[in-house]
Amino acid sequence: VLDRSNYHGFWPLLYQVATAGLEPESIAYPIRAILRHYPNVDFQLAEVHNINFKHKKVLTDGEAVPYDYLVLAAGSTNSFFGNDNLATYTYGLKDLDEAVKLRNRILVSFEMASRESDPAKKAALLTFVIVGGGPTGVELAGAFSELIVHVLRKDYHNLDTMQARVILIEASPNLLATFPENLQHTAYKQLEKMGIEIQLKTAVANVSNNVVTLKGGEEIAAATVIWAAGVQASPLATQLQRPLGRQGRVPVTPTLNLEDYPEVFVIGDMAYLEGYKNKQAYPMVAQVAIQMGKQAAANIVANIEQQPLQPFKYKDKGTMATIGRKAAVMDAYGIKLSGLLAWVSWLFVHLVYLIGFRNRLIVLANWAYNYFTYDRGTRLISGRKGEW
Amino acid sequence: VLDRSNYHGFWPLLYQVATAGLEPESIAYPIRAILRHYPNVDFQLAEVHNINFKHKKVLTDGEAVPYDYLVLAAGSTNSFFGNDNLATYTYGLKDLDEAVKLRNRILVSFEMASRESDPAKKAALLTFVIVGGGPTGVELAGAFSELIVHVLRKDYHNLDTMQARVILIEASPNLLATFPENLQHTAYKQLEKMGIEIQLKTAVANVSNNVVTLKGGEEIAAATVIWAAGVQASPLATQLQRPLGRQGRVPVTPTLNLEDYPEVFVIGDMAYLEGYKNKQAYPMVAQVAIQMGKQAAANIVANIEQQPLQPFKYKDKGTMATIGRKAAVMDAYGIKLSGLLAWVSWLFVHLVYLIGFRNRLIVLANWAYNYFTYDRGTRLISGRKGEW
Repeated sequence: VLDRSNYHGFWPLLYQVATAGLEPESIAYPIRAILRHYPNVDFQLAEVHNINFKHKKVLTDGEAVPYDYLVLAAGSTNSFFGNDNLATYTYGLKDLDEAVKLRNRILVSFEMASRESDPAKKAALLTFVIVGGGPTGVELAGAFSELIVHVLRKDYHNLDTMQARVILIEASPNLLATFPENLQHTAYKQLEKMGIEIQLKTAVANVSNNVVTLKGGEEIAAATVIWAAGVQASPLATQLQRPLGRQGRVPVTPTLNLEDYPEVFVIGDMAYLEGYKNKQAYPMVAQVAIQMGKQAAANIVANIEQQPLQPFKYKDKGTMATIGRKAAVMDAYGIKLSGLLAWVSWLFVHLVYLIGFRNRLIVLANWAYNYFTYDRGTRLISGRKGEW
Repeated sequence: VLDRSNYHGFWPLLYQVATAGLEPESIAYPIRAILRHYPNVDFQLAEVHNINFKHKKVLTDGEAVPYDYLVLAAGSTNSFFGNDNLATYTYGLKDLDEAVKLRNRILVSFEMASRESDPAKKAALLTFVIVGGGPTGVELAGAFSELIVHVLRKDYHNLDTMQARVILIEASPNLLATFPENLQHTAYKQLEKMGIEIQLKTAVANVSNNVVTLKGGEEIAAATVIWAAGVQASPLATQLQRPLGRQGRVPVTPTLNLEDYPEVFVIGDMAYLEGYKNKQAYPMVAQVAIQMGKQAAANIVANIEQQPLQPFKYKDKGTMATIGRKAAVMDAYGIKLSGLLAWVSWLFVHLVYLIGFRNRLIVLANWAYNYFTYDRGTRLISGRKGEW
């Protein structure tokens, strides 16, 4: 197992790290701890630069690693559609470092606003634009609104935090595009009730320092812009010098390997395979990645045992998103739910999928604390001034 | 209240952050949360650059802040006795960032060692030198040894972690100089039993990349050197352009103010005041700082009410240091203890002094988890390669 990080991150809870509800360590688990009980598995902290398919070698920042079988699962990263300004002036939410940077940014914005005497600058510091109304954007907007209403409003008694605006911008006509229509509507209503300004059918043309320019020409003065509108496969995919599918993903056969290199499997966000509802590509979500991982493993074993490989079959377990305290939407196993029951299911599922007893314990302790006190305890600005 | 960080850190537990036992967020508490219930107290995230005593102004990175009374409590930082090499090549343990950097360094060293084929380089990567046998050095050495024995040995099954050395170097003839002699001896025995190599009456002459040179000329090849041998007052003290006492501390009158500016109080590690046992300066420890804070507050009130100021009187509550699981030394209220009871007292006192219910909950959950599983859960290498 090669990874440039020494931990496995549980990204569905990243937005809670970014909104000061959880510490980064609680949603990450050391890879060596996961693999400890498999004496035939080795881990190396290494950044993979490229693959030499011909000579069956993984090229890393250290020595090259030879392979008989290879599974590529390098995931995805933010996609800014080639607009460098977006990359420079927006905050992403794709890994732990980005989540901590966003947390620091939100808190620093409030600190700066409390010192600012120019009303226009103060308003911009208190305006937070989230671009993208998928699950990430919706969950972040909800958690963010609760952070402001329940915590920051009490922290800054000299600041008119009623001025703080959270604006959620989505290019399509609906939030949560993959959800059933009535749940989309529920989520919209709920977010609106929490004071979030939602702008649908609105595309962002550009972002510069402190200004978001919409496609229509309208400008929003906002010091913090969060990018949750697009992802693409890891840059490693581009390195491979192969034709790529949409979102820079690597096309694979139905058995999840490369057509020309049957010993190489590509899975998860990085893999491009059609077959999901009406011949769409399988979505870049955790469930697809987990099930592809199992299929790739089974196919490697089959290959060694000279059995035929099996094509990937996806069992859609459904989808869910939390909006706020006692509010979530869920569409799973044919059940469409919203409200308290969906929220409790969301909590339960996320605790179960989290790896490691300690992490479950710490997350549960934080959730219980948040639930009973309305407080969010990890609102630390880490690092020093120059780094913010 | 002006601070360059937005949190109050509980430094007695820093070494547990550095040894992957606690997350940084669990020992830091937002200053605004502490001050929330005092409507007449304001907080500003600001770095103080200097004081204009004449015009009663605090000069910050933002606007200058005028004052009627001023309390300077900027604490202390590492002292490298003017040796730039020590500052460059050693790891300190004076704040959260340093603790996280040290944690990353320890874990990266093991990762690099597991990839290293040159035996000499591998040995240097697995050699950790701690300079300074005071409470910080002793507590760090003990926790570090437990991290290696109970956790890392299981994580790296392809690495001979028996090769890992922890070397504790102290210039004076004893560890824990401020403790009674029999407790010093107990601590020494206990650390030795844990496999720590202790070198007393040994001074470090220099540290360069991967080599520690002792005063006698002996060299130790070590990739990680931790500096716990000296502290000095915050650099702000030097900025004040006043004569300073030992360790760069600001001399104060017995009522804790400046002789020439009675409205300015200096407290804690930054203040220099004699009167502790045989006319020594009060030590740079938390108890002195806490009690000085109370006295300074009382004296400001007295001044406003035109009452006479009271001199600082120190009530020595004693001292304690933990060495490892069920092992600590304690000298408090006339009771000298070691072993299990001292350890339980240490746990209790540190939980009580920690600020905030959430932090207590999280620290207690971590301690219980560590106690029952021998595991340390927060062994994450944060950031990216270039930052390590």
